[in-house]
Amino acid sequence: MAEREFKSIAVVGVGLLGGSLGLAAKAASPAVRIIGIGHRRSSLDEALAAGVVDETTTDVAAGVRSADLVVLCTPVGLFADLLKRLAPAVGRGAVVTDVGSTKAAVVRSAERLLAGRAAFVGSHPIAGAETRGVAYARADLYQGRTCVLTPTPRTAAGALRRVEQFWQSLGMLTVRLSPTEHDKALANLSHLPHALAALLVLVQDDAHLDLAGTGFLDTTRIAGGDPVMWRDIFLSNRQAVLRATDLLGGRLEQLRRLVDSADGAGIEGLLAEAQQRRAKLIQRRLRQGRIDG
Amino acid sequence: MAEREFKSIAVVGVGLLGGSLGLAAKAASPAVRIIGIGHRRSSLDEALAAGVVDETTTDVAAGVRSADLVVLCTPVGLFADLLKRLAPAVGRGAVVTDVGSTKAAVVRSAERLLAGRAAFVGSHPIAGAETRGVAYARADLYQGRTCVLTPTPRTAAGALRRVEQFWQSLGMLTVRLSPTEHDKALANLSHLPHALAALLVLVQDDAHLDLAGTGFLDTTRIAGGDPVMWRDIFLSNRQAVLRATDLLGGRLEQLRRLVDSADGAGIEGLLAEAQQRRAKLIQRRLRQGRIDG
Repeated sequence: MAEREFKSIAVVGVGLLGGSLGLAAKAASPAVRIIGIGHRRSSLDEALAAGVVDETTTDVAAGVRSADLVVLCTPVGLFADLLKRLAPAVGRGAVVTDVGSTKAAVVRSAERLLAGRAAFVGSHPIAGAETRGVAYARADLYQGRTCVLTPTPRTAAGALRRVEQFWQSLGMLTVRLSPTEHDKALANLSHLPHALAALLVLVQDDAHLDLAGTGFLDTTRIAGGDPVMWRDIFLSNRQAVLRATDLLGGRLEQLRRLVDSADGAGIEGLLAEAQQRRAKLIQRRLRQGRIDG
Repeated sequence: MAEREFKSIAVVGVGLLGGSLGLAAKAASPAVRIIGIGHRRSSLDEALAAGVVDETTTDVAAGVRSADLVVLCTPVGLFADLLKRLAPAVGRGAVVTDVGSTKAAVVRSAERLLAGRAAFVGSHPIAGAETRGVAYARADLYQGRTCVLTPTPRTAAGALRRVEQFWQSLGMLTVRLSPTEHDKALANLSHLPHALAALLVLVQDDAHLDLAGTGFLDTTRIAGGDPVMWRDIFLSNRQAVLRATDLLGGRLEQLRRLVDSADGAGIEGLLAEAQQRRAKLIQRRLRQGRIDG
């Protein structure tokens, strides 16, 4: 059954993710009204001029008042403060969601701060780029990507279905996981790769960087991401990040032992297993028609 | 001063690198003769049919006899055996080089096995892909990339200049480093990223792989590389790989402490330094006109 569509969407933080959300939502339902909320007047003006939003304000409470959907698109470290400011103003029938890359701490805090005010549904659309700002916003940023929704026993079923339908209307595949499961999975799949990309850059000797090949550039691409956004991700998913780090540390120690003992069969076996598991993932993506990942 | 060009090039191992070498050398000097040497008749026939080589043989000694340049393009683990077989047959004025990704052990072994027979010059053209086989060979694989030459006190100056000029004729930038310096630099820039890409795949839970974003796919792309080739690289560069592993392990431990103690400023500082260092590298590449790395 089709749920009631959102008619007025407040986007808090109009950067790459928020801006792309505005463009994609307007492309999906031309009648929808997008309210851009931010703290820098210049970014909001840029978003308005680019047709990414229909109206703008730097006042969070005023901006969310008429919205039936509020989407938090800032770094997760700002969520608690934003939720405190919007809670008294947001409509009782409104739904609040977010695009944060970590969920357990975010959902716990949002459910507490919005209790008795508005329904909260945690979302993590797995899309983005290492570029920042509304200038890079694209209507197809979410197209064909996966969005994880993280309901809890406190999540209103109707709100969950409406938010799910919203992301699907932007071309996303939706998946449901508990906030904790989400955080464990993403610590391994996203936060750990980001950490390693950064560490790989840091261990290099500047004198030799001209010898970097495409392998190095690809492997470290995500180290170009916003340090503040990623600091917040690491801080809000500490336990799962520590577990992922330890898991990798153990594997690194295993490889070290194989190299140290010149165990050719062991090294080849480890590399072959990684090659095969990655090939399976790529084949599955191709079958799903998600060639670009 | 222009050195004497090579007229007859024996390519030992006609896969992606060897095949691309044949195509690129023929594009650069149409009169050059390329002799393809391999152990599988079917691959050699495929290379001949594709115009990658002009003649083929599975007999290493016979193949190198008339060549003035011999290029080893197999995994480095096969070099010692190949050098033993070609040493008695190769011409006294001929030059032998290679495309191996590690140099200290390779150069030491080659200088010993070819002593009094032919001049050896270690080369590492930093080019390639995670694809294998002559079917993927491209005339522009080496174009715009860097080739490291690794002379030693035993390297003949004329042979070094001729090999340098050869790589330059394929569109490569050439750099000279000692074999040991090369191996240290590449352990950090190439072998460690490869190890981490593989380990990153191995720590994943298959149940969650559908949530992998483009960041994960990019970061692990090189884990698709040939396990045998990479096994040989790790084995022939053990000490430098162990050092690189320990360097990364230390940085991983540093990040772990910052996350464990919720040190936001420390985490942000570390990520910002990585972001800035990578941005500098990319800007330098763009200035050099090497946009694709």
